[in-house]
Amino acid sequence: MKIEFITSNQHKFEEAKHILSDWELEQVNIDLTEIQGTRFEIMKAKAKEALRILKRPLLVEDVSLCCSALGGLPGPYIKDFLRSIGNDGLYELIHKYADHSVQAICVVSYIKPGLEPILFEGIVEGTIVAPRGKTRNETYSWSPIVQPLGSNKTYGEMSIEEQSKCSMRYVALTKLKHFLETEID
Amino acid sequence: MKIEFITSNQHKFEEAKHILSDWELEQVNIDLTEIQGTRFEIMKAKAKEALRILKRPLLVEDVSLCCSALGGLPGPYIKDFLRSIGNDGLYELIHKYADHSVQAICVVSYIKPGLEPILFEGIVEGTIVAPRGKTRNETYSWSPIVQPLGSNKTYGEMSIEEQSKCSMRYVALTKLKHFLETEID
Repeated sequence: MKIEFITSNQHKFEEAKHILSDWELEQVNIDLTEIQGTRFEIMKAKAKEALRILKRPLLVEDVSLCCSALGGLPGPYIKDFLRSIGNDGLYELIHKYADHSVQAICVVSYIKPGLEPILFEGIVEGTIVAPRGKTRNETYSWSPIVQPLGSNKTYGEMSIEEQSKCSMRYVALTKLKHFLETEID
Repeated sequence: MKIEFITSNQHKFEEAKHILSDWELEQVNIDLTEIQGTRFEIMKAKAKEALRILKRPLLVEDVSLCCSALGGLPGPYIKDFLRSIGNDGLYELIHKYADHSVQAICVVSYIKPGLEPILFEGIVEGTIVAPRGKTRNETYSWSPIVQPLGSNKTYGEMSIEEQSKCSMRYVALTKLKHFLETEID
């Protein structure tokens, strides 16, 4: 079965292609509306909009950054947070609180004609730290300020191989893989 | 000319009706998508969506709360901020910084068939203070923590008459009024 992955990010596409190697994954780059709401509402709306355009099985994904000290904020609004205060600003903000814990949560939304979107979630627990390392590709990336539990590096200091080992996207895509394996067409 | 005002809030409708008394204002209550983006992008998208549904001259409005300490956040995401950390949480957050200044910014978006939306902005300068007074009607209202400059009361402590005197909505709607007066149909 052919599945379209809506992303402009080559690295994300390669990662997904590796995990979903039993299916014919195609990269499609189209602009989709990002609504306000919970990460689930946003990803459902995105998949539905993409289906209206493409009319084929497809997946979309996005990562929310949920800080415990802020009751789960910035969540899906992480790009706007970084646009407003940057990685330095978010680090300083969280370090005004005692609790620096964070969850990086990837939601993958899979949809095909005639069905509602199905969501798969991958969560990595971590800590907000002072920026170390680089951002990759993306302008508003939190990689330098998030250090996954069990690692002494931030995502920004890791090689792509190291990142893959603590990838919330990997967890969510593996759940989708298991679903697709058992799905009856 | 008849103009539809998309709002579920009776008080907002009465305020607008009072200011735009030369036009026949009608209250319409429909659910519109709230996209992510700047307050301008959000209000343009809302007006366009409403026009697709109603196909008549109409206006939509919303208020962003822009804290200087956070580079303009929460901005249009104020409802989600209050849902996550509440008025107490936002007050505590801002008071971890030296700068407690805030702008309450109303954007009114007016559109009619065949035209792009036109935006009018009303800004009230104020300070984030410890919660005093009540919220009115709305579940996620910041009225108790915003004190406009020149007042010793928060919006939550004011009567509706007092609120009207420092209303960002009043400023924006008055700009719309002046535009409508000079508009050639």
